[in-house]
Amino acid sequence: MSPVKQINHVAIVVDDIDEALHFWRDGLGLEVTHVENAPGQDSIVAFLPTGGAEVELVKPTTDDSGVARFLNQRGPGMHHICFEVDDILTYIARLQENDIRLINDEPVIGTGGKLIAFIHPESTHGVLVELYELTQNELQIRLARARKLADQAIIRGQAAAAGVLAFLRQFRESDDSNERE
Amino acid sequence: MSPVKQINHVAIVVDDIDEALHFWRDGLGLEVTHVENAPGQDSIVAFLPTGGAEVELVKPTTDDSGVARFLNQRGPGMHHICFEVDDILTYIARLQENDIRLINDEPVIGTGGKLIAFIHPESTHGVLVELYELTQNELQIRLARARKLADQAIIRGQAAAAGVLAFLRQFRESDDSNERE
Repeated sequence: MSPVKQINHVAIVVDDIDEALHFWRDGLGLEVTHVENAPGQDSIVAFLPTGGAEVELVKPTTDDSGVARFLNQRGPGMHHICFEVDDILTYIARLQENDIRLINDEPVIGTGGKLIAFIHPESTHGVLVELYELTQNELQIRLARARKLADQAIIRGQAAAAGVLAFLRQFRESDDSNERE
Repeated sequence: MSPVKQINHVAIVVDDIDEALHFWRDGLGLEVTHVENAPGQDSIVAFLPTGGAEVELVKPTTDDSGVARFLNQRGPGMHHICFEVDDILTYIARLQENDIRLINDEPVIGTGGKLIAFIHPESTHGVLVELYELTQNELQIRLARARKLADQAIIRGQAAAAGVLAFLRQFRESDDSNERE
């Protein structure tokens, strides 16, 4: 089993996204890349990436969803933490072997087609934990980004190689002219 | 002001570190690098890095600290999220300009000599947020790591350059012999 790759996001339940942004964007200076209506999750989500992870501000849009109940019972605050894994099925099996209770014993499809599974806070001592496996689509977006970086490195490498060649040619020419002397 | 660098850690209050590790280590597979007694914070902390960030499990060791009160009132769960910044003083000034209430209006010294400041959950809509500036010491550790990586890259680069040189010499030799023909 390959290890957990990283924290993917920390989700924060808010009762008003604009008011929350006064802190997260105006105060803390995080950038809001997009605000998405997630009808499947009865919520609006604002995405604020930082480093390799994201802060997600989640505002419930109905009264009877999990986030709406959380907001009513506990008020706004940190709702869950999500970890990125390579093979969500292996993780689910391992958690079950350790008698850890899952909310989703089989992965469900999240926004953007990603595979997700929530672990029950009862088995994590009060923390709602989400597992998240990258979709092929997202993998391709990341690969495209990596390729672009590799291309830039190759261009820089070619420039460096051209410099080495020019230097060597110069050296060879002076070497040749020395031979001629 | 340089942007927030990344999530540094998510702190989780637990009532028993060993029991909590049954999920975080045995189930989720995170590695525990060390468990530290932090008497200044009246707690024992277990560090579980993943990607560039850490999960920190915090167990209070007295009854009257902030984490002990949190545990008594809300039960175990996510306690705070910490962001790494370059210049904590600039952030404190900017937050104050935005009328965001801080718990520490001046940075305080955390474990390992780091500069930290907590922002009051009242101004963040229920989330306790910590800011954290790397110490010179930690910077030096990271720089040493980066230098080691750079050295390895240079060695690989030198090997590649030696290969290019060998190829060019070969090319030159065949070129010279062609000229002789």
